[in-house]
Amino acid sequence: MSFKNSIMISPDHPRYESLMLRARMVEAYKAGILADSGLIAHGRGEAFDYLIGEKTTETARKATHAGAAALSLAEYPVISVNGNTAALVPHEIVALADKLNAKLEINLFYRTPTRVNLIEKALRYAGAKEVLGTEREEPAYINGLKGPRSRASKEGIYQADVVLVPLEDGDRAEALMAGGKKVVTIDLNPLSRTAKTASITIIDNLVRALPNLLSEVEKLKKMDRNQLQKMLKDFDNEKNLQNSLEIVARAYTGEMEL
Amino acid sequence: MSFKNSIMISPDHPRYESLMLRARMVEAYKAGILADSGLIAHGRGEAFDYLIGEKTTETARKATHAGAAALSLAEYPVISVNGNTAALVPHEIVALADKLNAKLEINLFYRTPTRVNLIEKALRYAGAKEVLGTEREEPAYINGLKGPRSRASKEGIYQADVVLVPLEDGDRAEALMAGGKKVVTIDLNPLSRTAKTASITIIDNLVRALPNLLSEVEKLKKMDRNQLQKMLKDFDNEKNLQNSLEIVARAYTGEMEL
Repeated sequence: MSFKNSIMISPDHPRYESLMLRARMVEAYKAGILADSGLIAHGRGEAFDYLIGEKTTETARKATHAGAAALSLAEYPVISVNGNTAALVPHEIVALADKLNAKLEINLFYRTPTRVNLIEKALRYAGAKEVLGTEREEPAYINGLKGPRSRASKEGIYQADVVLVPLEDGDRAEALMAGGKKVVTIDLNPLSRTAKTASITIIDNLVRALPNLLSEVEKLKKMDRNQLQKMLKDFDNEKNLQNSLEIVARAYTGEMEL
Repeated sequence: MSFKNSIMISPDHPRYESLMLRARMVEAYKAGILADSGLIAHGRGEAFDYLIGEKTTETARKATHAGAAALSLAEYPVISVNGNTAALVPHEIVALADKLNAKLEINLFYRTPTRVNLIEKALRYAGAKEVLGTEREEPAYINGLKGPRSRASKEGIYQADVVLVPLEDGDRAEALMAGGKKVVTIDLNPLSRTAKTASITIIDNLVRALPNLLSEVEKLKKMDRNQLQKMLKDFDNEKNLQNSLEIVARAYTGEMEL
């Protein structure tokens, strides 16, 4: 119903973008790509996105810039893909993996063989030549995690030095950091454990952050390793995250004056 | 999947309450009580609830107090019920209608006969003797609204002087206010159009607000109309809403100091 209804929304509706994304997520849920909690997670994202004005903030740009540098410097970059990521930005994720010569690894909180296969299909349909983290693999395991969440691909996250994890859960982000990996995350909640744990936290919507990451990585191709390393050294994630929080706080106190 | 998973969550998990509610919403969605967008709306609620500390704030208490007074003073109070309300607090809604001698009216954004019937069943199962807004009625219509959202029950909202509308959409809240009705809303987003439009805005989670409303209404039975009217006159919704916003803003700027 809501899908039909949002399809009927005219493009000049103030909530058009948001309603079309919502419709896409409902389709993905019905197709089995999203877990039950995937739609709920999307709703949480909508709320936080609303609070940053549904646009890429200056702090998000800085973090995207640093994230692109970290990924460009990586010896063995891996991009972790969950259901929401596969539903929202499959082509952009595949294009970024190509640009970085990074591995793509499926990594689900509520892992089922069916969902893994559907997400692999979605990624291959978007042009992925290699997809890790499938059921065909003999998995490796990350220290400090229990259950299916400890699973990692031997050819992927298990040996990665830099991992891009959009929408990662806190426990896993902490375990990856504890494993000595650099973690670049994209998360709309600046208060989430993942946001606070990661090496580089991009507070932005995946549908804006991925195209920005792609163009940043392209730009950085002109820079040498020293320049990239300096860029990374100059970026303070905690300070940047604090600035994101202040943007939201201002949105709250400012909004009522309109 | 997420339902099974959250069922396995132990009661001392910090997110236990939130995860159990999430599981209940997933069940309601699968039962057909929630529209596709219902789970997403729940997720938005989770985010805003998180920002007020997942507890009833002092400003929410004040609004609940005033809302209980408005409903107690009403000549013809009506409680509007949508899918999320029926899924989260069916028994509390029915108990409040009994206490206030108020009508219960089903009022859906994505209205389908099937959902209307499922929600009527849920309310009757929770003890409702009368349910308005069903398919059996010849509906009336509210001025200033187009399409199914203009629908109202002749015996219900159409002639109500005070309407309790948990989780109402902005257009409809404005049309009800324009129609000279007093609108009491419960909404977790202090920036929503409904929150800003309503006569009395309770920024709280339905699962906390409804029990609070019930006990407030019980307490106010001891008061006479003059005392209740004074309570209402002393309540400033815009100021109270501003205070709710400041609580969230503080949550944002404060959180990082932890």
